[in-house]
Amino acid sequence: MKRTKVKALLQSAERGHEVLLKGWVRTKRGNKYVTFIAVNDGSTIHNIQVVADMNLFTDESLRDVTTGASVSVLGTLVESQGKGQSVEIQARTIEVIGLADPETYPLQKKGHSLEFLREIAHLRPRTNTFGAVLRIRHAMAFAIHRYFNHNGFFYVHTPVITASDAEGAGEMFRVTTLDPINPPRTEDGQVDFSQDFFGKSTNLTVSGQLEGEVCAMALSEIYTFGPTFRAENSNTSRHLAEFWMVEPEMAFYDLEDNMDLAEDFLRYLVRYALDHCLDDLQFLNDMYDKELLARLNFVVEHDFQRLTYSEAVAILRDAKQKFEYKVDWGTDLQSEHERYLVEKHFKKPVILTNYPKEVKSFYMKLNDDNKTVRAMDVLFPGIGEIIGGSQREENYDKLVARMQELNIPEKEMWWYLDTRRFGSVPHSGFGLGFERLLLFVTGMGNIRDVIPFPRFPKSAEF
Amino acid sequence: MKRTKVKALLQSAERGHEVLLKGWVRTKRGNKYVTFIAVNDGSTIHNIQVVADMNLFTDESLRDVTTGASVSVLGTLVESQGKGQSVEIQARTIEVIGLADPETYPLQKKGHSLEFLREIAHLRPRTNTFGAVLRIRHAMAFAIHRYFNHNGFFYVHTPVITASDAEGAGEMFRVTTLDPINPPRTEDGQVDFSQDFFGKSTNLTVSGQLEGEVCAMALSEIYTFGPTFRAENSNTSRHLAEFWMVEPEMAFYDLEDNMDLAEDFLRYLVRYALDHCLDDLQFLNDMYDKELLARLNFVVEHDFQRLTYSEAVAILRDAKQKFEYKVDWGTDLQSEHERYLVEKHFKKPVILTNYPKEVKSFYMKLNDDNKTVRAMDVLFPGIGEIIGGSQREENYDKLVARMQELNIPEKEMWWYLDTRRFGSVPHSGFGLGFERLLLFVTGMGNIRDVIPFPRFPKSAEF
Repeated sequence: MKRTKVKALLQSAERGHEVLLKGWVRTKRGNKYVTFIAVNDGSTIHNIQVVADMNLFTDESLRDVTTGASVSVLGTLVESQGKGQSVEIQARTIEVIGLADPETYPLQKKGHSLEFLREIAHLRPRTNTFGAVLRIRHAMAFAIHRYFNHNGFFYVHTPVITASDAEGAGEMFRVTTLDPINPPRTEDGQVDFSQDFFGKSTNLTVSGQLEGEVCAMALSEIYTFGPTFRAENSNTSRHLAEFWMVEPEMAFYDLEDNMDLAEDFLRYLVRYALDHCLDDLQFLNDMYDKELLARLNFVVEHDFQRLTYSEAVAILRDAKQKFEYKVDWGTDLQSEHERYLVEKHFKKPVILTNYPKEVKSFYMKLNDDNKTVRAMDVLFPGIGEIIGGSQREENYDKLVARMQELNIPEKEMWWYLDTRRFGSVPHSGFGLGFERLLLFVTGMGNIRDVIPFPRFPKSAEF
Repeated sequence: MKRTKVKALLQSAERGHEVLLKGWVRTKRGNKYVTFIAVNDGSTIHNIQVVADMNLFTDESLRDVTTGASVSVLGTLVESQGKGQSVEIQARTIEVIGLADPETYPLQKKGHSLEFLREIAHLRPRTNTFGAVLRIRHAMAFAIHRYFNHNGFFYVHTPVITASDAEGAGEMFRVTTLDPINPPRTEDGQVDFSQDFFGKSTNLTVSGQLEGEVCAMALSEIYTFGPTFRAENSNTSRHLAEFWMVEPEMAFYDLEDNMDLAEDFLRYLVRYALDHCLDDLQFLNDMYDKELLARLNFVVEHDFQRLTYSEAVAILRDAKQKFEYKVDWGTDLQSEHERYLVEKHFKKPVILTNYPKEVKSFYMKLNDDNKTVRAMDVLFPGIGEIIGGSQREENYDKLVARMQELNIPEKEMWWYLDTRRFGSVPHSGFGLGFERLLLFVTGMGNIRDVIPFPRFPKSAEF
């Protein structure tokens, strides 16, 4: 007989037929007449109730049915007699497949702190919270692929190991097979990376953008969705050493097109979550963040406010609110400024454009004022920047001039510059930090809780 | 006016309306009355023909319309007068957006060798061949997500940076931020990895399986799809240092269920390619591999032959064919043996099961004979092994015994072993090398030609 998953059982319209349930015990309670066993199999946040008539079962036979044990239950799906569930299973046989010793199994009935659960990240997917987060993570990843596929974008796998540094900055992890204790040396005593696996010094990528641009110059509209890395010693609730990034890149898009795409994309994703993950979102709303569903609906229902950096600076200068950091034209905005704009002033998502070139990357298109670039940051309530992007500088001479100003080696970037030498076109793109999106959609407060096995300074467990 | 992509133009039922085309020039030819410009934008392998009436245009105005240049064309979509295309564009205006100097642009009309194109991997997506390969690559990635999403599997991102080695072997890349020239040392002169970024020695993952198993023990059915790495000095047409792997892992699946899934999955993917990429497949069939479409249809139409390793050994021993390597029970099969079984003996895809434990990994479930494990390899025509998988050993004691035999450190694997201590269940999974799949589906002969920017010994360009 084939197993039916809990999600399907709970949605079943049929009654009175025999079903096979397999899953893990969440709780067991009862009296001398009847035992109720709540079983979950990860397909949904809801458990299904197994009812064991104690005329058919002995206490002894149910002794090993403890929290965390795996069970196989054969029984009849019936209308539930109790409250809170539509159907339940009247058990005919209950087999314990794998034990979970109540003395040592760490996930007992009582709630656990998120900090404690981080220490047992290999078991936390078995909790309601992380089951919900991981199902939402899956749904958001799928929605991203679905959105782009539907709109004619091609998924491109850009390399993880790279010899270039897209941002022109950012601390990177070195990838090597050289003997760490006694590496080969050049005549002047430096490490001889020509003998390393790739014949040169290589790192883990910080962004797939530059390779993405290359592909957009052939396929028109592409996106990347892959792991990216920062070797920054940041022990915060917003930083990971390894995280996933989504980077669409589009030929023939100007900044306006770029903003239209970013807005449509984000609202599609949030709507998808509301349409496909409402049970999980409701749980997270009830347990962690009573404003969560309201905030998600808010994003779906409101157009994003678009304004320039300069306009934002003027608003912030006139603001009655005291800021810790002073607002000066030419400096980057702080999180407190971004949140003021989104949460207090406009009370909706905001897209800021045309930042001073000094605070942005070399590849962003210079405006005619020679001072600002066609950058855009999408700011969200509670999160701040969720997307950063720009129209790219498609003019070869201007791009080279900017690289020279910033000491970015042209020679290593020959292939990137070729896109501006041969059939260059106006183009744009942006980056969405996948875990940033998940912080917003799940309402979780710590980025380590929206990825299965977080990587951060001094921690690469599991 | 909004741009329409070539794919949509070619499929358009409407005629006589004005359209805006943006793309890159593939060819230009003509006479003094008319100029024909073939334009491609990557949305399809087909070009659209732009017709410039030389009463409206001058040679001078079309001088920069050269192969590789980017153009914006405003014109009327009309029934084509010529052969080979249904519609064409009668141009009203033709604007060259970005030049491509015919003296220096590497991709001129003539065909280029795949070897040469590998040297300019940043431009090769602009060729018919790599446009086709990249579109198929996208379609296969999407089909993988679609298949699993539809069947209730959850996508899990397993870590790229890891301190563990799933295979218990395999050469790995070290990930580090230590000073390469003068790393910190312990008292006994070794490198002090406790001072490294993660507080220990870390590597790039060779497989997400172990973390995948952990998640399947909570969510029932999961899959990974991410980059994996091998620091092997293999300069072959079948090996990459960085490649993408798909690894489903399913609780409550035995080996039979695992085979059923693998077979259904592979046939779904090949059918998806035939349904969604026929133009690109037809091109590759015509240009590179006249058997390609026949081979793909063959897989869709035939059940896979299932037999044990021992049965295969018996067949190979009785074979009339001379093999380079002798077939002995207990040794791994060579590619020549696998291909004989698939291409000569059964003439269909084959799944071999129950291999000698010595040639397989520690985590595979031991059969009652104590000699073989519940492994399965799916063998494909032309490719050999396309999937490797197994039922996993769910028994704690047997797993630990096997780890001890193979000197796999239990202490580092405490979290993996916990899955067998708490609510263990029979479970199975497999790995599909994404580029192996693409070799099969595209018919390309070299794995470096089915990934945008290949990584192999002495090469991390772009």
